[in-house]
Amino acid sequence: MRATIIAKPGDIRVENVSDPSMVQPTDAILRIVATCVCGSDLWDYRGINPVDEPHPIGHEYLGVVEEVGDEVANIKPGQYVIGSFFASDNTCPNCRAGYHTSCLHREFVGGAQAERLRVPLADGTLVALPEEPCEEQVASLLACSDVMGTGWYAAVAAEVKPGATVAVVGDGAVGLCGVIAAKKLGAGRIIAMSRHASRQALALEFGATDIVTERGEEGIARIRELTDGVGADSVLECVGTAESMQQALRSTRPGGNVGFVGVPHDVQIDGQELFYSHVALRGGPAPVRAVLPELIDHVLAGRINPGKVFDLTLPLDQAAEAYRAMDERRAIKVLLRP
Amino acid sequence: MRATIIAKPGDIRVENVSDPSMVQPTDAILRIVATCVCGSDLWDYRGINPVDEPHPIGHEYLGVVEEVGDEVANIKPGQYVIGSFFASDNTCPNCRAGYHTSCLHREFVGGAQAERLRVPLADGTLVALPEEPCEEQVASLLACSDVMGTGWYAAVAAEVKPGATVAVVGDGAVGLCGVIAAKKLGAGRIIAMSRHASRQALALEFGATDIVTERGEEGIARIRELTDGVGADSVLECVGTAESMQQALRSTRPGGNVGFVGVPHDVQIDGQELFYSHVALRGGPAPVRAVLPELIDHVLAGRINPGKVFDLTLPLDQAAEAYRAMDERRAIKVLLRP
Repeated sequence: MRATIIAKPGDIRVENVSDPSMVQPTDAILRIVATCVCGSDLWDYRGINPVDEPHPIGHEYLGVVEEVGDEVANIKPGQYVIGSFFASDNTCPNCRAGYHTSCLHREFVGGAQAERLRVPLADGTLVALPEEPCEEQVASLLACSDVMGTGWYAAVAAEVKPGATVAVVGDGAVGLCGVIAAKKLGAGRIIAMSRHASRQALALEFGATDIVTERGEEGIARIRELTDGVGADSVLECVGTAESMQQALRSTRPGGNVGFVGVPHDVQIDGQELFYSHVALRGGPAPVRAVLPELIDHVLAGRINPGKVFDLTLPLDQAAEAYRAMDERRAIKVLLRP
Repeated sequence: MRATIIAKPGDIRVENVSDPSMVQPTDAILRIVATCVCGSDLWDYRGINPVDEPHPIGHEYLGVVEEVGDEVANIKPGQYVIGSFFASDNTCPNCRAGYHTSCLHREFVGGAQAERLRVPLADGTLVALPEEPCEEQVASLLACSDVMGTGWYAAVAAEVKPGATVAVVGDGAVGLCGVIAAKKLGAGRIIAMSRHASRQALALEFGATDIVTERGEEGIARIRELTDGVGADSVLECVGTAESMQQALRSTRPGGNVGFVGVPHDVQIDGQELFYSHVALRGGPAPVRAVLPELIDHVLAGRINPGKVFDLTLPLDQAAEAYRAMDERRAIKVLLRP
């Protein structure tokens, strides 16, 4: 099959590799219908995460089940399915608490930018669609696999409440999906921090009420100005740098909440500053599986349309161009069709 | 009047100083009925916080109002009152949100280990008792001024829910009051971490169900052993060191909450570790004023008895001995009577 390989930072290739095969009787093999490039893939592409040896890449997928292991009871060949980037058993204490990405048996699902994919713990990981999705639904359903689920978790972790004032740090696909989530959870005011016209437009379309273009101290001051001098009730940190974390923490009112979903890179939080801020902080890899059924319902009913974050679609063989377009910020997010 | 002065680390004196006088028309002057030494006073006493020049010390108080300024409307001379260590106006957006210790006009109330005390923003800060308290109630009412309010906030910040499993890191007066709070909020299981027999006994009396004597990695392992392998739902961090914060974070289940009320000293929280833990963290100087009326009700009705944390009572003139007794852990907390 054809699969996307990161050979080294900046070097993406689509190569012929062996088809995946069953490893455990709880596995499923999917034929990928749609996949995409994640902001977190760029950490590798840019060499910020080490790339020790060439390896398959990608972790977002919508696919058709081709084969299931003997111990898979609920997922059947022929079903259209979506899953998260972490396989989970959906039965351990952490899954039962809704934190599937802390599943005691979690396993990273890698290599999704390919024609086929092995998914471990298929029964716990995959959610089947009621039928074959129509072409217009594919992008929004694919978004649920990661960015929409992650934006949703950011809003939940930031405890967005009806009527609340929410600020979103980061105008990537996750931040934009965070705007959708905040809106759906009833936020009264949604401040999107963005300097890019096309992303500002999408944020407004998704429900943002204010755009803040300033950053750093000026950005913090602007948010305080918009929020009675005290800061936002809930802030979604969707980047993962020391600067964005500081932006988020200092833009939140005492008693407010930050939800952080950008994987932190060189982020240290000063205990005393956090203490005196009275701000609560919860982050983590989004437990997408917990909300997948709900998100799929919203998409199929047309209540949310996160697929709009894909502003470029390419055939799988052009994966290298997909990475370049995102790296150069020519595209928000690129969908790949095998 | 007689007042306690910290001259330098390790040097506590009770000296004759001028009586406090009105500074603002929103002030009140109290005659102190009971005051005490706080664990946080020991940071100064031990020289961990700098003591640049001799200054009055103490911030916990139960007193009788002697005089009020022209703009004080609700607090009257002759009333028995309790207040918090931060004066607050009780009207700003942060006070209205329940975070009085982030009041936009907050002011530290210092010098309470004395015969008299000036309290700024009297209407917003002080809560009057319905009548003169009887002698047996004095200790528990005084405890509401800080340690009971702080233990309560630790439990609220850790989002203790009915039936939850709670762990308490720190067996000082605040940690012990945290046990009271967890019990009152309906915790099903309360694990107190303590190595001192007298404190263990008090924790059990207050509602702890388990005692863990291990610390560090062993303590974390012991708590996991007691909690289905995943950690406690809510953990109260009542110390403020890097070690205690780590103990708290690693003893909490994914999706659980840490409430931290020990003022952090040299505590840095690694963003990536916090991220993958899925643990939420909220701390801060406890907004005691927000819960003072409720706590006073509980004490007057005999539903809680936090005054038991005072295992030594001394006349004000023996303040130096009070500090020594707490520093050497001969006493949990010392009450001082002017």
